[in-house]
Amino acid sequence: MGKRIVVALGGNALGNNLPEQMAAVKQTARAIADLIEGGNEVVVAHGNGPQVGMIQKAMAELTRSDPEKYIPCPLSVCVAMSQGYIGYDLQNALREELLDRGIDKGVATVLTQVEVDPKDPAFAHPTKPIGAFMTKEEADALVRERDYQVIEDAGRGYRRVVASPRPVSVIELDTIRALVESDHVVVACGGGGIPVFKTEGHHLKGAAAVIDKDFASEVLAEELNADVLIILTAVEKVAVNFGKPDQKWLDGLTPEEARKYMDEGQFAPGSMLPKVQAAVKFAESRPGRQALITLLERAKAGIAGETGTTIAL
Amino acid sequence: MGKRIVVALGGNALGNNLPEQMAAVKQTARAIADLIEGGNEVVVAHGNGPQVGMIQKAMAELTRSDPEKYIPCPLSVCVAMSQGYIGYDLQNALREELLDRGIDKGVATVLTQVEVDPKDPAFAHPTKPIGAFMTKEEADALVRERDYQVIEDAGRGYRRVVASPRPVSVIELDTIRALVESDHVVVACGGGGIPVFKTEGHHLKGAAAVIDKDFASEVLAEELNADVLIILTAVEKVAVNFGKPDQKWLDGLTPEEARKYMDEGQFAPGSMLPKVQAAVKFAESRPGRQALITLLERAKAGIAGETGTTIAL
Repeated sequence: MGKRIVVALGGNALGNNLPEQMAAVKQTARAIADLIEGGNEVVVAHGNGPQVGMIQKAMAELTRSDPEKYIPCPLSVCVAMSQGYIGYDLQNALREELLDRGIDKGVATVLTQVEVDPKDPAFAHPTKPIGAFMTKEEADALVRERDYQVIEDAGRGYRRVVASPRPVSVIELDTIRALVESDHVVVACGGGGIPVFKTEGHHLKGAAAVIDKDFASEVLAEELNADVLIILTAVEKVAVNFGKPDQKWLDGLTPEEARKYMDEGQFAPGSMLPKVQAAVKFAESRPGRQALITLLERAKAGIAGETGTTIAL
Repeated sequence: MGKRIVVALGGNALGNNLPEQMAAVKQTARAIADLIEGGNEVVVAHGNGPQVGMIQKAMAELTRSDPEKYIPCPLSVCVAMSQGYIGYDLQNALREELLDRGIDKGVATVLTQVEVDPKDPAFAHPTKPIGAFMTKEEADALVRERDYQVIEDAGRGYRRVVASPRPVSVIELDTIRALVESDHVVVACGGGGIPVFKTEGHHLKGAAAVIDKDFASEVLAEELNADVLIILTAVEKVAVNFGKPDQKWLDGLTPEEARKYMDEGQFAPGSMLPKVQAAVKFAESRPGRQALITLLERAKAGIAGETGTTIAL
């Protein structure tokens, strides 16, 4: 009866600092525990936008304080740190919520790397601003010394931009699978995963990139042979003509219908569009696979077919 | 034929910054791969002294830069981040070294919490200095506002001190065991583990403490029912009358002999003493269990009985 479910949770839903995160994970844990209580296997993937931004800022302040000793911290390393930062609170909230319900299960955070392709066209057009605002002098130094790309944000200063390439595969897939099959709830692919290139031999090299957590969750769901990919967002259902008088909430979509709406430009890039794209990719990857886009607190009802937008063949 | 081995690796052996760490993990990986190639199951636990110090300093700089937004980061959270920071490089170096030898095994870093007892006498006498030096004003503010304990380091300023309580149990034990039994090499208990108290209900609360990684590795080795605990250090063997004309290297010791030397004050507190204490505790925990204290690069020879100091019943 139970399904294997990958849940993609937004980094913004986890708060901008530690007190916010500690409150947010409790609400998240209740929704995830509902799914587990329903007999499902659950892997939680999550974003890390605000958190990795905070860590980047901290590491940049460290470098400023002692540039001789501390080189600027690579983004991949900051993502690794954010997985510890978020995973610690998230796994504990899950553990506590499950034990409160009498469910004694292992809850584990797996440090996860996700392969990206150095030939991904995203690397030619980095678009994701990360880290703190800088002065022109600081920005120029990073461009010169570390080959960073920067953009000017009118009036607010300069920021580094990095690529957001598509995920290719999850390096720690076997680990995640082994734990799911040992009855664990697994937190994995934090921040879309630590982005790495495969280089000559067997070497993995950190990439200066951020991976969209919905796409990373989708790859993980495919590779884990999940039944359902739940993409959590700020609305209960996907809408067309969003915010207009003829706005219409969507209950179910085929990939074909979703693609038609995407071609019409119905979904906002950087917001609902990547979620629908990830959902379509999962739905099309094998008959029987289902993607669900809904609110965190409606995930259980969505799995029961009562709400949310379902995308399936 | 193969043994289940827990290896305790020093944080100092992992370098003071990222370039040092990336070089250090390669050497570590070769020694660990030797053990795996010998058919043993291996779990690597590691210290994080310099690394968590760096992260603490970075987070303190962040708070200084924007005290409204960022409260001082709890030590337990810094330890969680250090597990990501170190685990990422360490697991990749291991993965690469194993693949270079034709060994295709999962290598996983498990975010690990270790329970400590709030009644541990160490909490009444915090002794471990952590984080950056502060001015008197900064130190006073932390004492007043956050209940920190601080010491003055003559001429160099003020530093926070925290307790180093004994580890009680490894919260993620089932996770580590499941992965070992699924043929994984596991990196766990980084920095001695994230120190947590069990509070009412099922709640785990971060403790302002650091756990000695040798003691944490010992608890993990007992709980995992390991055959061998290898405690790596800067000398090939334990010595008595260390540095004196009658210095004598020790090949093998019973717990009783070790205890006699400890009573004589042969081993330096904060250095060789906790290693010998952890080794004795493991050796006494069950007949057949063996602790080995040696150099990283002699671990393989030590397991073969050719060098190092062995402590066993």
